Amino acid sequence: MPLDAHIAGQLKRNTDGLVCAVVQEAGTGQVLMVAWMDDDALARTLETGEATYFSRSRGKQWIKGETSGHTQKVTEVRLDCDGDTVLLTVEQTGAACHTGDHTCFDANVLFTTISGPS
Amino acid sequence: MPLDAHIAGQLKRNTDGLVCAVVQEAGTGQVLMVAWMDDDALARTLETGEATYFSRSRGKQWIKGETSGHTQKVTEVRLDCDGDTVLLTVEQTGAACHTGDHTCFDANVLFTTISGPS
Repeated sequence: MPLDAHIAGQLKRNTDGLVCAVVQEAGTGQVLMVAWMDDDALARTLETGEATYFSRSRGKQWIKGETSGHTQKVTEVRLDCDGDTVLLTVEQTGAACHTGDHTCFDANVLFTTISGPS
Repeated sequence: MPLDAHIAGQLKRNTDGLVCAVVQEAGTGQVLMVAWMDDDALARTLETGEATYFSRSRGKQWIKGETSGHTQKVTEVRLDCDGDTVLLTVEQTGAACHTGDHTCFDANVLFTTISGPS
């Protein structure tokens, strides 16, 4: 399915033809993961409401949860001021991270000013 | 200031030597912006607690708010599962976006399932 021309005209793709996608969980506001989209992946996301990305390592479209069952139902998509990043709000089923963690940012804290048990 | 070798060893930089930085507001949880960091920018962020990025357009380090006064005090930095993205939690002074909007994602909604006045 082709991407709407008006939207396509607003995108500032990187040299690989991709925009960055930041994925935030509805309700909790947690940032779950960051992935990438080509025009087709964004078009499919907007058309179906199923978060769909472009896998840079596999070089092909990737429907989130297609194999794991850990799908993302998209409730909102916003484009940033310079057109190179979309922010998805999603309802996450299961873990967002392939490690089994809820988010891809759970495991590794480099710096914190927040004291107390973590 | 050099980046801690243990942290440097965990980073998966892109072909420009950069990692993606997603910036989330403490308290509200709003995703404010996405920027990029080289090793020096990350090192300075961790050392000073002032969000510091690498400007791809200007090709140099960029201390957020240095000219605008719209600084970001960093309260947490997390690295994602594959080492190519950091998630910053910050206390934002003023607008995060150069347009004057609070976030870079305020202006352009591509898709929403949320009904009612916006």
